[in-house]
Amino acid sequence: MEVLNDKENQALRLPPGVKDFLFDEAAQHRTVERRLTDLLAGSGYREIITPTVEYGEVFLLAGKTRHGRNTLDEKVHRFLDRDGNLLALRADFTAQIARIAASRFVGMIAPIRLYYSGKVFRAEPQHAGRSREKWQVGFEILGANDIETDAEAVTNILDTLAALKIDDARVFIGNVDYFNGIMAHAGIEGERLQTLKYLVERKDAGGLAQTMEDFSLPSPVREVLTQIQNLHGGREILPEVRQLAQTEISRQAVDRLEALLAMIQKHAQADNVFLNLGEAEGMGYYTGLTLRVLVAGVDEVVGSGGRYDELISRFGVDVPAVGFAFDLDLLVNAISNGA
Amino acid sequence: MEVLNDKENQALRLPPGVKDFLFDEAAQHRTVERRLTDLLAGSGYREIITPTVEYGEVFLLAGKTRHGRNTLDEKVHRFLDRDGNLLALRADFTAQIARIAASRFVGMIAPIRLYYSGKVFRAEPQHAGRSREKWQVGFEILGANDIETDAEAVTNILDTLAALKIDDARVFIGNVDYFNGIMAHAGIEGERLQTLKYLVERKDAGGLAQTMEDFSLPSPVREVLTQIQNLHGGREILPEVRQLAQTEISRQAVDRLEALLAMIQKHAQADNVFLNLGEAEGMGYYTGLTLRVLVAGVDEVVGSGGRYDELISRFGVDVPAVGFAFDLDLLVNAISNGA
Repeated sequence: MEVLNDKENQALRLPPGVKDFLFDEAAQHRTVERRLTDLLAGSGYREIITPTVEYGEVFLLAGKTRHGRNTLDEKVHRFLDRDGNLLALRADFTAQIARIAASRFVGMIAPIRLYYSGKVFRAEPQHAGRSREKWQVGFEILGANDIETDAEAVTNILDTLAALKIDDARVFIGNVDYFNGIMAHAGIEGERLQTLKYLVERKDAGGLAQTMEDFSLPSPVREVLTQIQNLHGGREILPEVRQLAQTEISRQAVDRLEALLAMIQKHAQADNVFLNLGEAEGMGYYTGLTLRVLVAGVDEVVGSGGRYDELISRFGVDVPAVGFAFDLDLLVNAISNGA
Repeated sequence: MEVLNDKENQALRLPPGVKDFLFDEAAQHRTVERRLTDLLAGSGYREIITPTVEYGEVFLLAGKTRHGRNTLDEKVHRFLDRDGNLLALRADFTAQIARIAASRFVGMIAPIRLYYSGKVFRAEPQHAGRSREKWQVGFEILGANDIETDAEAVTNILDTLAALKIDDARVFIGNVDYFNGIMAHAGIEGERLQTLKYLVERKDAGGLAQTMEDFSLPSPVREVLTQIQNLHGGREILPEVRQLAQTEISRQAVDRLEALLAMIQKHAQADNVFLNLGEAEGMGYYTGLTLRVLVAGVDEVVGSGGRYDELISRFGVDVPAVGFAFDLDLLVNAISNGA
């Protein structure tokens, strides 16, 4: 038997935003991972394990928005291999799954249900204080775009929270078409649309007010945008939501959300589901439903996802899909906090 | 229901040396991973989960050899973060564990038994045809340098092979001190020693013969080196091994291997253990016992490890240790081949 000695050393430092999980902490993460993957496997989902390193093009394609900005470009860690090829660290699972769907799922009968567990890597400046390695456990349903499939995604989330006994969680559902329809009605597009989306999503009230003035937006549009930014709550906000929906596309988005709420209303955790119409941009590839989970006592978003019916077509095959990922480390924190 | 369509796309390519594991293949890898980790957990080992990204210094320290060449330097994938720091992808688990031992295990009672499962990343030129992502499942015993601990390492390997029903495996045990002692006796050191080690380990008979001539080595040394290169087999080679051991350090290495063989002789798989005295360099940090597993029908080394009593002291704390890692993908191949 021997007792280890103390000593300082430069090589002992870790970069900001990464962690070691030792012993009990590792076991706790594995237990939660196992509960999530067992639950998904029990519901007919099958695992895929993707490479940690691949060509950066996959993430650039996924990060493209309709309005110029790429949501992933500056977050991708890139490096040269020994043959001079530019490689990238996995910055997003859904991007990889779109690549796989367009190459290896061709000819399979949809819907395809799959899950994954692993890390995504995001280049974050140190001052942001964010994780550079995020351990995600997520699922995707490919090849179906009906409301039943949206409801299945929400049900998976509620079942997971129930299995983990996390009571103090809120699952926010939204639909990007709601915002897009209202902006189309106001004739706002291009870079202006992009900026407004960004501010609404981040609930930056001051920035939004200033920008609306800079853009000289007419007063009715300003009012709508200000209201949308705060448009979250239970079914009781539906009349207000409908009243603001000025176009057919926005109204259809509300109909779909209302139908989704009806489908999940018998779930024991249905009271934890809320509407959030300020959800406007997300990853840049979301086309309809958006999903976001917050837990009391945890500052960051514990899980997020949504529908991405146009992402896989960027890889050459037209397949609708919906997906969601929990941040495993935040989920463990949520449990430890006794949420 | 929908059937996915076929189409080609540049973004669908994967770089050489990385893979997707889908569905059954993913499940097969997880099953084998689980058997290994359950077995280790059942023997009192506890998991650690290390970052995929950290400062490259950790791997450079681990790759240092006594004779100049760094075994890891050119294999480390490096990239700049957004603050201008040079980061590196995990190139070796043992290096990370040495860092952790020297910082977070200080004051714990030894021996500490731990295991891990994850990928290591090695920059390999494409023509080498090697994996750039290797999924390793391994264990380490820190804080003990007795033969019983060496035997525990070998027993873990044999138990794993038995649990996986891999019968056609050979576990080669060696000791780097054997080769080092003989070279010291012949007065060979520095760059010449390094070159000879490299050739002996790779069993490059032609290269070894040419190099010995280039170095004008005396004929007795040439004979010994030629014999060492082929010195592998069962207990029956021990007399020849002893006869070549010209120094105390080499003789002690043989004594230790013989004692180790005696300790494991009652194991049901003991017949799969062989001596390999041509094991000379390995990772650069090995100091005594070396371990290497080959399986019939699998071209590459399925698992390797050894004793590294001087590695953790490079991080500032003097702790002996022994460790071993299986290549999970090769292990799955070994099972699929019906080895």
